[in-house]
Amino acid sequence: MGGGRTSTWRLRVRWGETDPFGIVFYPSFYTWMDQATHELFRSPSGTFADLFETRGYGFPIAEATCRFLLPARYDDELVVVSTVARIGGRSFTIEHRFSRDDDEIAVGSEVRVFARPDPDDPGRLRTEELPDDLRAFLAGETAELP
Amino acid sequence: MGGGRTSTWRLRVRWGETDPFGIVFYPSFYTWMDQATHELFRSPSGTFADLFETRGYGFPIAEATCRFLLPARYDDELVVVSTVARIGGRSFTIEHRFSRDDDEIAVGSEVRVFARPDPDDPGRLRTEELPDDLRAFLAGETAELP
Amino acid sequence: MGGGRTSTWRLRVRWGETDPFGIVFYPSFYTWMDQATHELFRSPSGTFADLFETRGYGFPIAEATCRFLLPARYDDELVVVSTVARIGGRSFTIEHRFSRDDDEIAVGSEVRVFARPDPDDPGRLRTEELPDDLRAFLAGETAELP
Amino acid sequence: MGGGRTSTWRLRVRWGETDPFGIVFYPSFYTWMDQATHELFRSPSGTFADLFETRGYGFPIAEATCRFLLPARYDDELVVVSTVARIGGRSFTIEHRFSRDDDEIAVGSEVRVFARPDPDDPGRLRTEELPDDLRAFLAGETAELP
Repeated sequence: MGGGRTSTWRLRVRWGETDPFGIVFYPSFYTWMDQATHELFRSPSGTFADLFETRGYGFPIAEATCRFLLPARYDDELVVVSTVARIGGRSFTIEHRFSRDDDEIAVGSEVRVFARPDPDDPGRLRTEELPDDLRAFLAGETAELP
Repeated sequence: MGGGRTSTWRLRVRWGETDPFGIVFYPSFYTWMDQATHELFRSPSGTFADLFETRGYGFPIAEATCRFLLPARYDDELVVVSTVARIGGRSFTIEHRFSRDDDEIAVGSEVRVFARPDPDDPGRLRTEELPDDLRAFLAGETAELP
Repeated sequence: MGGGRTSTWRLRVRWGETDPFGIVFYPSFYTWMDQATHELFRSPSGTFADLFETRGYGFPIAEATCRFLLPARYDDELVVVSTVARIGGRSFTIEHRFSRDDDEIAVGSEVRVFARPDPDDPGRLRTEELPDDLRAFLAGETAELP
Repeated sequence: MGGGRTSTWRLRVRWGETDPFGIVFYPSFYTWMDQATHELFRSPSGTFADLFETRGYGFPIAEATCRFLLPARYDDELVVVSTVARIGGRSFTIEHRFSRDDDEIAVGSEVRVFARPDPDDPGRLRTEELPDDLRAFLAGETAELP
């Protein structure tokens, strides 16, 4: 698609995120993708984390992928550009591009689903069709979470 | 004291728990102390994690300390012996001793308090005096959580 | 393929690996895939971590993916079955299947490359063609790392 | 003492740093103390992490303590003020004070030792007396690491 909602998050690699080879322990990239998604959903009226509580829905992860292009090291300053790259029926894909200065370091994506508590069993979640107002938010056409 | 409830937990150091110096990233010891406390409270009828839900009380952390005696490395097999070393009015101390074969690697402790939801504000916790049946459990005189 | 080298690793979900929704924080699955790969390469003569030092080669990560099928929770006992599922020219794929009792929880994979220090710049790694003896190990035809 | 070298580091609590009780998983405070110490030693000519490589010495951790005063939650903005609070013969203490707006959240400290590779066994470290120029740096009298 032409490009949906997008955000930029900057981070500095911490000592505890690296490994004995002196490079980033690769699972750290997934903690950063998760956090970058939280930033993408940051809005004046709430956070990604309180969606279930404040709005009765959320976006559980269905799949996450990352390709590692160049090693990143302690104290590197990384920029993560996150974009809603696909909006499907019940799911959408967020692409995360990590760079350090002009170098692309990693490219990842998360597939997340739209889910509400199951009316027959409120302790469980049930995926549902994305409603139009949420599609507009993901597409970047509206700035506020419905 | 003569010695309260005690437990032993074995762990193997994971790659992600070490740092670029090739030794354990020191905060990992605190994640292990936390987990060792969960093991100390393991009982047939519940886990440390569901105490609030099943019994209406819990043991938030008040203070944690660790002294580091020898470095531990990737793939090391460590033994953690955890003992209730002090039972106070509203708090108690768990001592955690980490060893690798005959070497003592680290000695830490956690101070935890007895807390229940505040009747005037259920979203907050309030410390209370440890009841006798819980003291007996911590002292190792009874095997089951009250 | 019919099936390459395989291994099984059991883990119990720790408190620190879960999130405020009470389920596993999804990046934890990648730390487990990494650790399961270390177990897959465990051999009498060395560990995955000391390959560079003892043999002059290693297997940096090129890509990692995981699909999440069912939530896992604190204290769940998970089994990870890891299998070399593809052996390419310079890379191979390890598939990791996570289950809890009879339930499949997640299915992931790692693509790793064969790399040695670059002779022109020893601080950097260079991918190379997988040699035959290493292919035999990955295929499960030999038990010891060459 | 009147007060040694000091620094301030701001952080926002990440999702992966919290636990199922919806508060910070307490070992996260130690990863922050470690990182805050890295910030305290940040200087134009190097980082805490490359001291061994560039200067032939480092500061391994000997002991770390933290008292937890108020819970911190996801997305909280915390300020960590770190100060060299004691300079001993071979060791020094860094105090870390965590606050959120006007609330004090936690107070911790790290004891670190001055160490160099043992001349008789370069793979091991040996503690040594802190030299005067390093004392001056820790005391905040000089801005650059010797």
